[in-house]
Amino acid sequence: MNARDDSKGGTVRAGYVRPLDIRNGRIDMGHGAGGRAASQLIEEIFLAAFDNPFLRQGNDGASLAIPQGARLVMATDAHVISPLFFPGGDIGALSVHGTVNDVAMMGATPLWLSASFILEEGFPLADLKRIVQSMAAAAREAGVAVVTGDTKVVEQGKGDGVFISTTGVGVVPHGIDVSGAHARPGDVILLSGTVGDHGVAVLSQRESLEFETTIVSDTAALNGLVADMLAACPAIRTLRDPTRGGVATTLNEIARQSGVGMLLDEAAIPVKPEVDAACELLGLDPLYVANEGKLLAIVPADQADAVLAAMRAHPHGADAACIGSVTEDPHHFVQMNTRFGGRRVVDWLSGEQLPRIC
Amino acid sequence: MNARDDSKGGTVRAGYVRPLDIRNGRIDMGHGAGGRAASQLIEEIFLAAFDNPFLRQGNDGASLAIPQGARLVMATDAHVISPLFFPGGDIGALSVHGTVNDVAMMGATPLWLSASFILEEGFPLADLKRIVQSMAAAAREAGVAVVTGDTKVVEQGKGDGVFISTTGVGVVPHGIDVSGAHARPGDVILLSGTVGDHGVAVLSQRESLEFETTIVSDTAALNGLVADMLAACPAIRTLRDPTRGGVATTLNEIARQSGVGMLLDEAAIPVKPEVDAACELLGLDPLYVANEGKLLAIVPADQADAVLAAMRAHPHGADAACIGSVTEDPHHFVQMNTRFGGRRVVDWLSGEQLPRIC
Repeated sequence: MNARDDSKGGTVRAGYVRPLDIRNGRIDMGHGAGGRAASQLIEEIFLAAFDNPFLRQGNDGASLAIPQGARLVMATDAHVISPLFFPGGDIGALSVHGTVNDVAMMGATPLWLSASFILEEGFPLADLKRIVQSMAAAAREAGVAVVTGDTKVVEQGKGDGVFISTTGVGVVPHGIDVSGAHARPGDVILLSGTVGDHGVAVLSQRESLEFETTIVSDTAALNGLVADMLAACPAIRTLRDPTRGGVATTLNEIARQSGVGMLLDEAAIPVKPEVDAACELLGLDPLYVANEGKLLAIVPADQADAVLAAMRAHPHGADAACIGSVTEDPHHFVQMNTRFGGRRVVDWLSGEQLPRIC
Repeated sequence: MNARDDSKGGTVRAGYVRPLDIRNGRIDMGHGAGGRAASQLIEEIFLAAFDNPFLRQGNDGASLAIPQGARLVMATDAHVISPLFFPGGDIGALSVHGTVNDVAMMGATPLWLSASFILEEGFPLADLKRIVQSMAAAAREAGVAVVTGDTKVVEQGKGDGVFISTTGVGVVPHGIDVSGAHARPGDVILLSGTVGDHGVAVLSQRESLEFETTIVSDTAALNGLVADMLAACPAIRTLRDPTRGGVATTLNEIARQSGVGMLLDEAAIPVKPEVDAACELLGLDPLYVANEGKLLAIVPADQADAVLAAMRAHPHGADAACIGSVTEDPHHFVQMNTRFGGRRVVDWLSGEQLPRIC
């Protein structure tokens, strides 16, 4: 969505062109065809929201200056969440947060995003505008620029409103080397806050479940929190956001990647009472429910207090907790001391739990 | 689709897990849920095809070393082409070519791609494998690596087989500054080959039209051609691939962006006789039909011969031609001297011509 976009749209309009009818208008196939209609959509909705010097270059992509000798990080996420709007967020904000967080989990400072939209014919322009504005606000708040994009349109019944794929590029500060392969026995496992909020918020909206209190998604950009944590402890081993598959699956991945085991303390894992109650009702284990504004950090034991203090001093880490430690285990099992004094294996997510949760 | 992918998939399988049934298997919602099924899909289809050190990092994104003081280019494209397989290519190859070309049109050397897949429940695994292998082959041929990715699954009837969004990052060689804003009156307009092949190939497949000879898409990565052209003339002003909206719309965009007019010579624009005949039958103007392996170049007049020679020496530029020149025109019109001795304005594409052509 440069001034021209890849849609090859443009805006030399010989005569007067009526502005988009945002209130009542809908996407039609012409908005994806690369002519005047596509150009108008890009200008009046996308450029209006994302305006920045990269987009104003108006070329096939964005030209970006990078610091000398920087190491880059690149991450991508497709977003197909249903419903598009949910308590605490929407697909627009989520599509920024998801990718910003993936870049941040590499220890990088996210700088640039690309965004590609697949729109279904008939989708209300008003909803599109709301989503794009929400993306733009999320990008501003995270300090990243949406530098290039693309828009395609598919026939009614061949899509579902809007899908958004974002790709993020960031730079890794000198001396930082965060990886899922770096956890070592004796390290401490930190979690930045309560689990399950996003998945339960989306599911309750989808199923029109009414709980006494509204459960709100935790969707948020975590790059600020990560920066504070790395300032407190540049030796952080691993950072990862427990999205699809939840904390349980994410820890299993790290255990496997690092060739270690883990031992969790169930009582230490923060879960909001209303999320716990909803999970009980829905037959879900909050450890497997997706989060969109939480991270797991694995840190050397002697620096855990410093990192935890940095986390708790940040709004997105106020409820941070130490939830366990890394062990030696040739089987790479994640185990948990339960509230009732027992111990059980916390396995990978099997099969489908919550489809289209992000 | 790192070893873990953003799907949080992994592969510590306590027991024996049956390999995917590629021949008869289909995508189900569990392939998008982030557990074992997602992990298996990623390993057996995506990693098997794209294997490289970036993906093997197994983190949330790819970590990339870049040359000192490089300028980066970032471009993205969503691909929703229908049908998925067409004469001369498929959505997999196209999704590499489209984004590689966008990066190359900035004068950059494409290096890295991300790929995000939105799969429809029920999509045959055999087709997915074929598409992914085609992507991998196209990436190898273009000299780029697919360094990170994501996979989501939507319910049957909420997608259309597979949509692929790719984002490309490349580096701009020192001294190169190519932009749609750099065309100047007196410059020469070069076209790398015949127009309309891709759009007509896809449309004839879609409509099950039988022509005497099969019309084949021109889908191809143009970064090699661009490198040869820039070696012959580092002062190339503008490069652009005439995809959606065709040569006509692309030239109108450049005219507007550079604040110039253009005058084309219809007789000089190469069109294959069978494409011309098909366009006649279908009521299409080849100047507005999408290409996926062609480029337009605007170059200083005194270097046009050198660039044209470099183009013709490359397999993707064998039919290159000089098709017109840049003029002064406050209205930024693209005009054309017709075969019949007249002159007409070549306007922007209006409305929809060929939906889902890329």
